[in-house]
Amino acid sequence: MKTVNAATYGSCIHAVGQLTPSQGRLQNLDLVAKSVEVLGRCNHMDFPFKMGMKHKMEYTRQYLHLRPKTNMFGCFLRLRNSLAQAIHNVLQTDGYVQVHTPILTSNDCEGAGEVFKVEPAETKVMQNLEEAGGKGKSKDHFFGVPTFLTVSGQLHLEAVTGSICKAYTFGPTFRAENSRSRHHLSEFYMLEAELAFADDLEDLMKVMECLIQKSISYILENNQDDLYWYWKFVSHSDCETIVKKMILKSFVRMTYTEAWGEDLQKEHERYLVRHCDGLPVFVTDFPTDIKPFYMKVNSNKRTVTVDLLLPEVGEVCGGSLRESNLDILEQKLESLGMSESLSWYLDLRRFGTCPHGGFGLGFERLLQVMLGIENIRDAIPFPRFVNSCKL
Amino acid sequence: MKTVNAATYGSCIHAVGQLTPSQGRLQNLDLVAKSVEVLGRCNHMDFPFKMGMKHKMEYTRQYLHLRPKTNMFGCFLRLRNSLAQAIHNVLQTDGYVQVHTPILTSNDCEGAGEVFKVEPAETKVMQNLEEAGGKGKSKDHFFGVPTFLTVSGQLHLEAVTGSICKAYTFGPTFRAENSRSRHHLSEFYMLEAELAFADDLEDLMKVMECLIQKSISYILENNQDDLYWYWKFVSHSDCETIVKKMILKSFVRMTYTEAWGEDLQKEHERYLVRHCDGLPVFVTDFPTDIKPFYMKVNSNKRTVTVDLLLPEVGEVCGGSLRESNLDILEQKLESLGMSESLSWYLDLRRFGTCPHGGFGLGFERLLQVMLGIENIRDAIPFPRFVNSCKL
Repeated sequence: MKTVNAATYGSCIHAVGQLTPSQGRLQNLDLVAKSVEVLGRCNHMDFPFKMGMKHKMEYTRQYLHLRPKTNMFGCFLRLRNSLAQAIHNVLQTDGYVQVHTPILTSNDCEGAGEVFKVEPAETKVMQNLEEAGGKGKSKDHFFGVPTFLTVSGQLHLEAVTGSICKAYTFGPTFRAENSRSRHHLSEFYMLEAELAFADDLEDLMKVMECLIQKSISYILENNQDDLYWYWKFVSHSDCETIVKKMILKSFVRMTYTEAWGEDLQKEHERYLVRHCDGLPVFVTDFPTDIKPFYMKVNSNKRTVTVDLLLPEVGEVCGGSLRESNLDILEQKLESLGMSESLSWYLDLRRFGTCPHGGFGLGFERLLQVMLGIENIRDAIPFPRFVNSCKL
Repeated sequence: MKTVNAATYGSCIHAVGQLTPSQGRLQNLDLVAKSVEVLGRCNHMDFPFKMGMKHKMEYTRQYLHLRPKTNMFGCFLRLRNSLAQAIHNVLQTDGYVQVHTPILTSNDCEGAGEVFKVEPAETKVMQNLEEAGGKGKSKDHFFGVPTFLTVSGQLHLEAVTGSICKAYTFGPTFRAENSRSRHHLSEFYMLEAELAFADDLEDLMKVMECLIQKSISYILENNQDDLYWYWKFVSHSDCETIVKKMILKSFVRMTYTEAWGEDLQKEHERYLVRHCDGLPVFVTDFPTDIKPFYMKVNSNKRTVTVDLLLPEVGEVCGGSLRESNLDILEQKLESLGMSESLSWYLDLRRFGTCPHGGFGLGFERLLQVMLGIENIRDAIPFPRFVNSCKL
């Protein structure tokens, strides 16, 4: 056998040889090598991952740039890719059109306040603008107006459903939340879908239920090796049972009043799901005071909304019918002082609107359920949160 | 026939009736309605689009929120969706794994300077941080360090190719360029792919050529109606011929020296493509002084790079082999004063690297070629550029 350089643990090699049935118990095949060439040596003394050791999630997370090299995270990356593809497949097959809603926006969708603002890094850019300008509005802002990172693509999607009946957006969204909890990220992926002519919450619940069940089934069919490996060596022990149950039965449906009676907290959500035999639970008809302006309100003064709670992580989806009545929406926006900045949104009701609704799904949370991942920072390749934006 | 309210142009209606062969020439079918209900009336006097009129691109662009209602833009949205799906399909079928590289980053990849910085919009968030803090570093920045919007996911992809041999990212990227040209946006979509074990530019050129040809073929097969409609009523007259030519022959390959001899400009690019009988042209081996640090340099002091020029729009892709030699890369980064901030990037060469390379493809530019769209602002649903961030 010809070798150039000694191959250390973690090295990248080019081996040529014959695959033969293995004599050992840990694998099916051995490569009997004729030549081994070291393409990239690994300084294994400094390399943070050690041969034969199972490193803790918290430990590997310290090395975001090398984490993909662990078999745990390589496996995760393939599964995350497949779940994203599954979501696209299910929606595209059902006639949905993906629309790239913008990351940069001059709206502050939910009026939540916890948004990021965006400006050029170099003051030079702004100085050039000022000199070239004259219109004046460019003086303070690159875009002429204060600009933020999106917290939701919903309003933009609503503009699109004026002609595309089923639309979705699937990309990163942002929150400037000062939270170091294992449930929150500053940059996370959200699937948002919007349906023209939806006039019943059941329309939305069917889409959510079908999307989640079909996506899980897709992974079970297409990524067996990776999924079972991850369940066996990484997930908590109940994960397989929990996930398989989710595709066997319909999700539970109940109103907010039936479910609880005050604002649901994270710990209540998980209790509720356990109470429902571990099945996913739709909770509908939330009180008006805890939901945003664009949601339709029914005759009982309840919003026509639905949250979907999944085992272990709680809320994964939130949806609602949208207020399509121009007068009611105008009144609401006026009382919030937003009727001018959102006059374009009122236009959507002015020029040929229809009943419609939609929902958002937290992609990392769904991954957490499917793979039994405790900390959301291990459900995304490059987690961002307060005081941490590595790489 | 029962009607509730009069339906004006632009109204949304619910019609029930029988589809019958049309007596007219402009369509194949008529709906003979038994009932028509107006779901959303349109104030057609104020509605910016008028019945029977073909509005100019520049005009419809003023109404981003209503533009999807024009048949021109509805058609475009479906085609944009299909081209994105085609790209996913081609790459996934070829074994590529999509990785969500971050939008927020503490790197300034190309050292270009024209980047956006990100901070919380409310000073309250930073005050709370300061009070809670103690570590000090959170005082000035939410993430503890200056944070920017990504200009490229390449460096993050390189970290992933340490284990996933073929990876890609497909999402928005950002430039704080003070340009109002019809070729530039501040937020645009880029497909970036990275291949482990690529040691020849031909490896990259094959992927680009195959990706573009297969994607176009996919649209020709799956979106005939929309594509031919758009070509007939919206595109410039040569578009169909130009696009069909691109899938018939191999792309031209030539070196930078053969092609020109000084830095190629937009107008040179288009001239070169015309000179090559309208075929796409790969230009390789650029001088070192006009390309960034991570590119491999060959023995002739030329970078191992390739740009792909397409008809009408010029550069659509740029790629290179990456410098995988630790010592050379370390020297380069030191001379640029970046060896500390990019020490993680050096680690990728320290711990089991391999020869690798990749490329980026401007998604809107490819759409411009395919659909003969003159202004890039009409190739994206919600265009962002200096002094404009509507909605």
